[in-house]
Amino acid sequence: MQAEPAHDIAHLGHVEILTDRPEESLDFFTRVYGLSESGREGDSVYLRAFDDYEYHSLKLTAAKTTGMRHAAYRAASPDALQRRVNAIEALGAGIGWSDGDAGHGPTYQFHDPDGHVFEIYYETRRYEPPPEERPALKNQAQRTPNRAIAPRRLDHINLLAVDVDAIRDFFPKALGSRVTEMIQLDDGTLGGCWFTCNNKSYDVAYTRGATGTRGRFHHVTYAVDQREQILRAADVFLENGVHIETGPHKHAIQQTFFLYVWEPAGNRVELANAGAWLILAPDWEPVVWTLEERKKGQAWGLKTIESFHTHGTPPAGG
Amino acid sequence: MQAEPAHDIAHLGHVEILTDRPEESLDFFTRVYGLSESGREGDSVYLRAFDDYEYHSLKLTAAKTTGMRHAAYRAASPDALQRRVNAIEALGAGIGWSDGDAGHGPTYQFHDPDGHVFEIYYETRRYEPPPEERPALKNQAQRTPNRAIAPRRLDHINLLAVDVDAIRDFFPKALGSRVTEMIQLDDGTLGGCWFTCNNKSYDVAYTRGATGTRGRFHHVTYAVDQREQILRAADVFLENGVHIETGPHKHAIQQTFFLYVWEPAGNRVELANAGAWLILAPDWEPVVWTLEERKKGQAWGLKTIESFHTHGTPPAGG
Amino acid sequence: MQAEPAHDIAHLGHVEILTDRPEESLDFFTRVYGLSESGREGDSVYLRAFDDYEYHSLKLTAAKTTGMRHAAYRAASPDALQRRVNAIEALGAGIGWSDGDAGHGPTYQFHDPDGHVFEIYYETRRYEPPPEERPALKNQAQRTPNRAIAPRRLDHINLLAVDVDAIRDFFPKALGSRVTEMIQLDDGTLGGCWFTCNNKSYDVAYTRGATGTRGRFHHVTYAVDQREQILRAADVFLENGVHIETGPHKHAIQQTFFLYVWEPAGNRVELANAGAWLILAPDWEPVVWTLEERKKGQAWGLKTIESFHTHGTPPAGG
Amino acid sequence: MQAEPAHDIAHLGHVEILTDRPEESLDFFTRVYGLSESGREGDSVYLRAFDDYEYHSLKLTAAKTTGMRHAAYRAASPDALQRRVNAIEALGAGIGWSDGDAGHGPTYQFHDPDGHVFEIYYETRRYEPPPEERPALKNQAQRTPNRAIAPRRLDHINLLAVDVDAIRDFFPKALGSRVTEMIQLDDGTLGGCWFTCNNKSYDVAYTRGATGTRGRFHHVTYAVDQREQILRAADVFLENGVHIETGPHKHAIQQTFFLYVWEPAGNRVELANAGAWLILAPDWEPVVWTLEERKKGQAWGLKTIESFHTHGTPPAGG
Repeated sequence: MQAEPAHDIAHLGHVEILTDRPEESLDFFTRVYGLSESGREGDSVYLRAFDDYEYHSLKLTAAKTTGMRHAAYRAASPDALQRRVNAIEALGAGIGWSDGDAGHGPTYQFHDPDGHVFEIYYETRRYEPPPEERPALKNQAQRTPNRAIAPRRLDHINLLAVDVDAIRDFFPKALGSRVTEMIQLDDGTLGGCWFTCNNKSYDVAYTRGATGTRGRFHHVTYAVDQREQILRAADVFLENGVHIETGPHKHAIQQTFFLYVWEPAGNRVELANAGAWLILAPDWEPVVWTLEERKKGQAWGLKTIESFHTHGTPPAGG
Repeated sequence: MQAEPAHDIAHLGHVEILTDRPEESLDFFTRVYGLSESGREGDSVYLRAFDDYEYHSLKLTAAKTTGMRHAAYRAASPDALQRRVNAIEALGAGIGWSDGDAGHGPTYQFHDPDGHVFEIYYETRRYEPPPEERPALKNQAQRTPNRAIAPRRLDHINLLAVDVDAIRDFFPKALGSRVTEMIQLDDGTLGGCWFTCNNKSYDVAYTRGATGTRGRFHHVTYAVDQREQILRAADVFLENGVHIETGPHKHAIQQTFFLYVWEPAGNRVELANAGAWLILAPDWEPVVWTLEERKKGQAWGLKTIESFHTHGTPPAGG
Repeated sequence: MQAEPAHDIAHLGHVEILTDRPEESLDFFTRVYGLSESGREGDSVYLRAFDDYEYHSLKLTAAKTTGMRHAAYRAASPDALQRRVNAIEALGAGIGWSDGDAGHGPTYQFHDPDGHVFEIYYETRRYEPPPEERPALKNQAQRTPNRAIAPRRLDHINLLAVDVDAIRDFFPKALGSRVTEMIQLDDGTLGGCWFTCNNKSYDVAYTRGATGTRGRFHHVTYAVDQREQILRAADVFLENGVHIETGPHKHAIQQTFFLYVWEPAGNRVELANAGAWLILAPDWEPVVWTLEERKKGQAWGLKTIESFHTHGTPPAGG
Repeated sequence: MQAEPAHDIAHLGHVEILTDRPEESLDFFTRVYGLSESGREGDSVYLRAFDDYEYHSLKLTAAKTTGMRHAAYRAASPDALQRRVNAIEALGAGIGWSDGDAGHGPTYQFHDPDGHVFEIYYETRRYEPPPEERPALKNQAQRTPNRAIAPRRLDHINLLAVDVDAIRDFFPKALGSRVTEMIQLDDGTLGGCWFTCNNKSYDVAYTRGATGTRGRFHHVTYAVDQREQILRAADVFLENGVHIETGPHKHAIQQTFFLYVWEPAGNRVELANAGAWLILAPDWEPVVWTLEERKKGQAWGLKTIESFHTHGTPPAGG
């Protein structure tokens, strides 16, 4: 049985994505994908969905490569942050403290067993809408954008890893995360693992990469309010020449209604809707899927597209 | 600033509703509203939505009156349960332990300042689907019902109270709940208050009753996955002669997409969808609405229907 | 029994709306309501929805007043046009031929018994998208707009009349229209009447105005593909300070899912969705509603808003 | 340019499907697919969707094989019926008159160039709902069913043919149908052709079969009001062990949102939604797709599933 949820970590806060086509990527994320810009600093543009309460949930950074530079979780309190730092240091995974950036205060960096960089922080910068972005309803961070696609908030990230079992062992200890679902291969090792630190059914997922390259990024996902909006989004992607990789369809694992596209630099981006699904049970037992079960494809029979197993950023060997 | 969330309470577990038209009420909740029966005991029928993981989320009990007999929260662990019992006893609100029923183990009873009865428990009975109810996807509690209306899970309850300020003071101390939104009247007292013990934006709401009667019930709500299902539900209610009180429309407070009907005994029942809205900020500040703001009506301008202020169960003075 | 459909008239083609706030109205119709501009001529801007195949479906004309200057139907062929001209002349309702405008060729003008001006034409100007507006799918007139609101096509108009019985007598003779539904008052006269010239359930509706003023306009309606888009549109209207008059809700008559707003000059505008509803029966019998039945309100019980009976453009007595 | 629409044929009326698993097929069409039974006669059960105005739109007949026995169109009037009979006789395609059945009066039978049998009739039997099936809204044929899947009406059929060019030549002459879209292969012959006799974008489609067998059936389609209902239907098919062949997704041709399943006897059945799409132009020019364009797959990139080209009923060579 999993331990009682720790709740030291409140939620996934943001992700930093690298792009070697910064102007095209920014155009995609704002004009097409429906995020808005909070500000810029150095080579980075800070972006967010209309109901993300923080200054940013996506830091888009111009670079010579692609992929994820880091992902960050917000702690529930200063004490909770310190408890997690202690736990991570005990695991020998710590990198150290840094000063934060335009979006948040001091942050503690660490790496997962596959080499992806994470941060945890508590002090944050709340988004303050300028007058023209003040919402009609005061319980919303920003006005609803007048775009076909209007994600409400950052939902989760998905990363590739060489050794998913190591990851499965690491996150509950490091962040107090719970495992909600996993894929167990015929040799007993894990092919994928989904974690959550709150009532969402997952905030980070790992799947085994087909290449041996470490630290690769699979996708970042924002949540929309209704899956009908994902159907409409597909038309908008089509009209704007965005590469639609697969979907819309419903995952068997986590039952997420999904649509995957590639932003201009090649990073995979998802729109998703989970309906009213939440993990409310404090003693949730991980759902374990076998390869045999996975052969049925997605929930309604769509075969998992081959590139889903091979395409990640940066390109393997790159 | 509100205290860091306590997380001793995992979620609202179930509600016991009284009906003086038990057969008609049962027919409504199962055939029309889309719940299914887990079992019976004495004068009660245990009901649940297809993805409620426990044995029941609604205990429907034949009685000479209507309204709510009790609502129950599930604690996050045995220790968390004991911490809450201690806190409630310190508040002088405790009633005592009882043995539980067909749905769960030992439970501690208490009353809120308005006299509504609550229970907290940890040991529960998980729903075990019979073969014909086993879902195609193993991460779901029960197969999706073949009904027009198919709520996924219990969402929240709404209660009337004479003194909402007393309630606002009570729940954070008793259960560690957070206040997410409230209505402040011109005299500074509260007209309504919304609480949550997890990432849902509310699991219990209180509004000031127009009568002086204590312990009255306003409504119970189940969540559906998409708001389009609420539009279709309206047709089904219409075809089945169910009294549609108001909606479908979108609340300004909490932005819930709603539809209110009265089940045959007069208890108000809601179907709701919150989209991708969650309270993720660990330091969420309550949103305070003035009466002036409330005069704008619901989100899209619908005036709040008069019976919403007056109709509760049991009938006042009854 | 109604006569076999004549089919001389193919469809409602466009409507000319007057505005005394031309810049604000144009901003509303394009930036908020989701139409696009085809061109300008004199005091008029030609607008259309993304899948209207003609050059325009809305001619927005700056004027000292508001309301509808004319509505126009496209005939099925040159011969069909001439047959209708003959029929209208026989009714003594003709005004005469004019040269057309930027949107279409020669047109024959006439007035209905209440004084509203109509036109019928056959030669039209097809919309030719500039390169940046070419759709990804070649069976669509223009690319899907990247706006929250994206109506597919003009749907219908609704006009006020002093004598609806005279209108009911006129349209089948003048245009070969069929009556699909009507409201019969207790004195036997008509309170409202819905007409169609094709398989849509109506393209023009008349309701009795509360004032004695003739020739007034009630609303123009565009169709969206899914009613979920109307729910989202309500948020966009709210955010943009547009007056939402009533809805979203479902009409009992014609079962249209509706949302009514006022554009800045006061003309009422609707977004609607009819689902898969079509009038396919060649011998459809009009559905007749009594006042008693109308007292139930709209389909799900919403009371018809008072301004729906009184507000028209131009203002009565204006 | 196509001729002005003839309008002698009002709409597709019904289709007769053969099944060698009659009980299972009936269970599928009623309990799962959401049709209701009007009556039985001999080896046939008469079925319809809730807003089909006639006695039946699907005649399900127990047989030793599968496939379509006939499809039937309703004429606009007795005169129109006779005009079509004359046209068909002139084409040498007539079979002759028969007395009709439980669902309609005298009917004239003919065959298309591929050997499929069609009927045209005018006298029909309107569906009269028994008291428990009377709708709450009188403008609807029957009450909305309390099933997850609730199609509104018959939409279209799709047939396989050896020589689609012959079909393309035949229907405009026989029924006055218009061609709305077609696939032209590199050798100039047609790979598929879509026809309509009214404002729907198609009521019958033909595609070239991969086998040389004549008279085969591809699928029958019912329309639902919103595409969200198709997403929910997919869950219901999954839960009921129905073979989901492909979808939900959006066709490039006709832009229909689709979901294909096989009923227990192997006949392919579709649920579809066309949004607000109608063919209103009286001079609509057929949209011609090349094989090169078809290689892009469906609208959002889904590759056409292989069985779509090979599976028909009865089995080829069977």
